[in-house]
Amino acid sequence: MTTFKLTLEYDGTNYHGWQVQPGMTTIQGTLQEAMTRIVGKDVHVMGAGRTDAGVHALGQVASLRADFHHPPDTLRRALTSSLPPDIVVTAVEAMDDEFHAQHSAHWKRYRYTLLTRRYPSALECRYSLFVPYPLDRDAMIEAGGSLIGTHDFSTFQAAHGSAESPVRTVFAVEFRQQGDHLVFEIMADGFLRHMIRIIVGTLLDVGRGRIGPEDFKAIHDGQDRNLASKTISPHGLCLLEVSYQPFDVHREQTQTPCAMVCS
Amino acid sequence: MTTFKLTLEYDGTNYHGWQVQPGMTTIQGTLQEAMTRIVGKDVHVMGAGRTDAGVHALGQVASLRADFHHPPDTLRRALTSSLPPDIVVTAVEAMDDEFHAQHSAHWKRYRYTLLTRRYPSALECRYSLFVPYPLDRDAMIEAGGSLIGTHDFSTFQAAHGSAESPVRTVFAVEFRQQGDHLVFEIMADGFLRHMIRIIVGTLLDVGRGRIGPEDFKAIHDGQDRNLASKTISPHGLCLLEVSYQPFDVHREQTQTPCAMVCS
Repeated sequence: MTTFKLTLEYDGTNYHGWQVQPGMTTIQGTLQEAMTRIVGKDVHVMGAGRTDAGVHALGQVASLRADFHHPPDTLRRALTSSLPPDIVVTAVEAMDDEFHAQHSAHWKRYRYTLLTRRYPSALECRYSLFVPYPLDRDAMIEAGGSLIGTHDFSTFQAAHGSAESPVRTVFAVEFRQQGDHLVFEIMADGFLRHMIRIIVGTLLDVGRGRIGPEDFKAIHDGQDRNLASKTISPHGLCLLEVSYQPFDVHREQTQTPCAMVCS
Repeated sequence: MTTFKLTLEYDGTNYHGWQVQPGMTTIQGTLQEAMTRIVGKDVHVMGAGRTDAGVHALGQVASLRADFHHPPDTLRRALTSSLPPDIVVTAVEAMDDEFHAQHSAHWKRYRYTLLTRRYPSALECRYSLFVPYPLDRDAMIEAGGSLIGTHDFSTFQAAHGSAESPVRTVFAVEFRQQGDHLVFEIMADGFLRHMIRIIVGTLLDVGRGRIGPEDFKAIHDGQDRNLASKTISPHGLCLLEVSYQPFDVHREQTQTPCAMVCS
């Protein structure tokens, strides 16, 4: 048996999220079926993060153990031809047996994409949230900065979230204006259920002046889901990267806690 | 009755092309139904070009005549909220009565997007053609240059194409390398059925060395569909722009007949 690390892209639109659920088409279930077809035995595929229904990934990581004695890239090609076009395995590596996609991960990076122009986009309607109203970006950046550090994120957790502890460490938050897109990126050691979607929903209320940046911090400190704004749509969210290196090793020169990056 | 010009974006994946067909969901049919709901009468919507099933648009133009006495932007907003998210009206203008989306057009610009890397893309599988083999870009550029000018394009017309004349004028052809994408753009006074998909299919055979650039010109001159390569998938194709100005007015400084533009 060899332990493999898979790196994955997927369009989550047509899936009921990552995790296997009876009678539902999920990313994990689709991958497990493809692996079983390839190796002829049941294979359990473990994901680094359980993305919700409709959430996409450009850099999800999964691990599995299987009897496969060809080069790892042969498994990559076999999986890609066996999977539907909206799930792509971009890399396969053989790992030490102790590698575990979820437990070995140090941090993850997610992106939420807002489309800020007068009219929605037909070609991007699956990948960004259309925001037709003007946004005060400076206020959003100021509010976003207060997320950084080790905090109780109960305010930004789904009411039915079931994490043992609501404490997470956010290493960095970035805003980036790319043409008509305002992109929000967040790097943390882990995320509570719906955490990013509730954070961005609340930041949007900061951006439109309903909440002041200083109120955002008070809402966060209140540790009460009812204080925050609604959970926004999953389709603007994408898991970009799962890192197996400590954050400060990877990104030594983070200068500002929350900045607008122009690109 | 006022004549309106609509500018449109659409994701063609879920439509049987532009043109109304009985029992099929089409872009034209969906637009006409939305207009009818808004003005309470049957409205005929005329497109600048009849895109095939699966082809997208970022700048399709349509014209219609209707009794609508509010500002044109009110019609844009009414249409956008009435249409499904994969069809977006980006602009509405009131025009002189002689304006006709198809007959008044001087030229159109289409883009075909190739994804040239080792593995396909899950998030772009609806918008680009995956090309896993290496391409000789210089040979493709040389061959593409021979398309420019006024020619009989019978070689690059669907076998069941029904155009009165196979003669078209190609004003410009461009290749652009954008990260992992090789983008082909073509501007012409009109296009025969499947013309761009057959041209790009044949250029791909030039790129992989099956056809020399000089053979490409001979194939074109042969005026026989059987000489060209197969019609490639519609999903990499997108109608970018319909222009109502003569080409040389719009783009005075076209330097090279067919060039690689780096961006």
